[in-house]
Amino acid sequence: MTRRYAILAPDRFAGDAKTAHGVIRYGTDATVAVIDPSLAGKRVRDAVAYLDSDAPIVGSIRDALAYEPTALLIGTAPQGGALPADWRAHIMDAIAAKLEIVSGLHDMLGDDAAFAAAARRAGTTIWDVRKPPEVPLFRGEVYGVRAPVLLMAGNDCAVGKMTVALELARAAREAGRHAVFVPTGQTGIMIAGWGISVDRVIADFAPGAAEQLVMYAARQQPDLIIVEGQGAINHPAYAPVTLALMYGCGADAMVLVVDPQRDRVSGFQTPTLDYRALIRVHEALIGTVKPANVIGIALNTRGLDDAAARAAIALAKEQTHLPVDDLVRYGPHAFYAALGAIEKTKPLEAKP
Amino acid sequence: MTRRYAILAPDRFAGDAKTAHGVIRYGTDATVAVIDPSLAGKRVRDAVAYLDSDAPIVGSIRDALAYEPTALLIGTAPQGGALPADWRAHIMDAIAAKLEIVSGLHDMLGDDAAFAAAARRAGTTIWDVRKPPEVPLFRGEVYGVRAPVLLMAGNDCAVGKMTVALELARAAREAGRHAVFVPTGQTGIMIAGWGISVDRVIADFAPGAAEQLVMYAARQQPDLIIVEGQGAINHPAYAPVTLALMYGCGADAMVLVVDPQRDRVSGFQTPTLDYRALIRVHEALIGTVKPANVIGIALNTRGLDDAAARAAIALAKEQTHLPVDDLVRYGPHAFYAALGAIEKTKPLEAKP
Repeated sequence: MTRRYAILAPDRFAGDAKTAHGVIRYGTDATVAVIDPSLAGKRVRDAVAYLDSDAPIVGSIRDALAYEPTALLIGTAPQGGALPADWRAHIMDAIAAKLEIVSGLHDMLGDDAAFAAAARRAGTTIWDVRKPPEVPLFRGEVYGVRAPVLLMAGNDCAVGKMTVALELARAAREAGRHAVFVPTGQTGIMIAGWGISVDRVIADFAPGAAEQLVMYAARQQPDLIIVEGQGAINHPAYAPVTLALMYGCGADAMVLVVDPQRDRVSGFQTPTLDYRALIRVHEALIGTVKPANVIGIALNTRGLDDAAARAAIALAKEQTHLPVDDLVRYGPHAFYAALGAIEKTKPLEAKP
Repeated sequence: MTRRYAILAPDRFAGDAKTAHGVIRYGTDATVAVIDPSLAGKRVRDAVAYLDSDAPIVGSIRDALAYEPTALLIGTAPQGGALPADWRAHIMDAIAAKLEIVSGLHDMLGDDAAFAAAARRAGTTIWDVRKPPEVPLFRGEVYGVRAPVLLMAGNDCAVGKMTVALELARAAREAGRHAVFVPTGQTGIMIAGWGISVDRVIADFAPGAAEQLVMYAARQQPDLIIVEGQGAINHPAYAPVTLALMYGCGADAMVLVVDPQRDRVSGFQTPTLDYRALIRVHEALIGTVKPANVIGIALNTRGLDDAAARAAIALAKEQTHLPVDDLVRYGPHAFYAALGAIEKTKPLEAKP
């Protein structure tokens, strides 16, 4: 089913509304309007230059209805995921207008008695994309997958791991390869229409969730599987999910997505790791289960001018001797080509 | 409230019934009977030599009632946690006899319609100790805790991390220190009467759960906090929980609990790490957030004779230059004394 999205992002659309931006840029479903009273009257591309869309920005659900949306998508993911109180009225208006509600928030809107009752009355539905299905414990069946598995990792959360995965999948497909993108978080799920929000799975089952995602992708007979990463291996709050993906998806290789301007991980004093330390800790850790090398560095140079971006790329190349590029700024094709063939690796076997 | 436990462990009591053994050995509540038809008529210490208890082993709930239990404790934790079908009758009998049901299984007995209805009818309750409370995301408040935090890690799951933590807490208390044991799994919770089964917490919140546990312990004004570990850092299924504890409890030092006879981690081909690799990977990883050293190795030499146990200890000492001992076989006091003062460490701060 094709959706026509109105995206809710009050006061946030020009800022860190990463779900909204991702769905507009990469989603297969159309975005027909954005709701942000602070930008009402503008077009999407006027508010966020890198989004090539002239969808209108409006101040209310009522105004959005003129563009015939079928669904309201909650377009930002505040830290911790709690629903800002003033958004409730917008959501109730959308339910009353019989729009489907699509949310990636931590708080399940479908578990909210008022929303659930209103949706029942209006005859519409609420899709909480973070609500994970039941998954088995990790089994190791992912080790039998034929296609190479390429996992994104990075120096922090919210540095662009999903974007790089999507750009690499696009470049691979344009190069004639059957590449499948594996979403592991709410925005990726909204873009791809399937997936599991691995950070919402019970901790013991998180590697099993990663494994099931790769097994699902493998049923499409791809020749390359590209897995969206989460968190960062030295983030005190989010590293367990990062590790669940490293082990659970049976990665054969990793691309590090790095924002070189971050000197600490989101929300904490913990310093980000430099390139060499990042490579060392990822390869050492994953190598205790199934060897996988870092095969490239995708920089996020947003906010740098062209000269500074090129200097950052040159520095990373010099320090790592790996392919380095900014895939959003300069396109994914050269970087994808530079990665070369991605080889399958085998899980370790016990010493005899 | 003091409980009098009947412990259910059909066909398993002499084997891997680690919950049963832990509660009998370390619990503050008394165990008055064990239910295992395959051993009926024996005493606990006849079935499991290292348990100093003459509680009777019986074949049924009916027989156990002669010893006036107040609660039925489910005494084993099968992998994955599913409830064996033939145990249901025992549990229904116990509910009918108005016993409280205490379970550490993955499947929540209180969510089972038949058990819940029977408990309501009988006027008794079901305590699913794995059911985690709501916890916040990791915040970093653990960094302000005054007492040193000592975390158990190890070369596999089920090697004795809880036992070593309990033995160290006992030795510390006997040496005049106010040591608090922090339970992170179902058996530890049953022993201590509080705690969170961190493996059951939603992955994003697992470090927050570890932090809240340490904050709770800190309110008792201890001068040493000893945290039960979980899993192993290179276990493909359980490592995320291991990492959640490493970062979340704000560890100042680690003790590695090692079964030197394991050559692969439970359930997988993945080789266990040797001492040097174990130390290296734990210190490298935790050092990206808050430095903590491995300060001792607690060996589990069960199944080895005395000469072989001493040889294993000597080998580990030679390879690590750290205090090494088997705390169950030789007592915890010498090892505890050899650990010396445990120094607080600071979280890293961003490069200037």
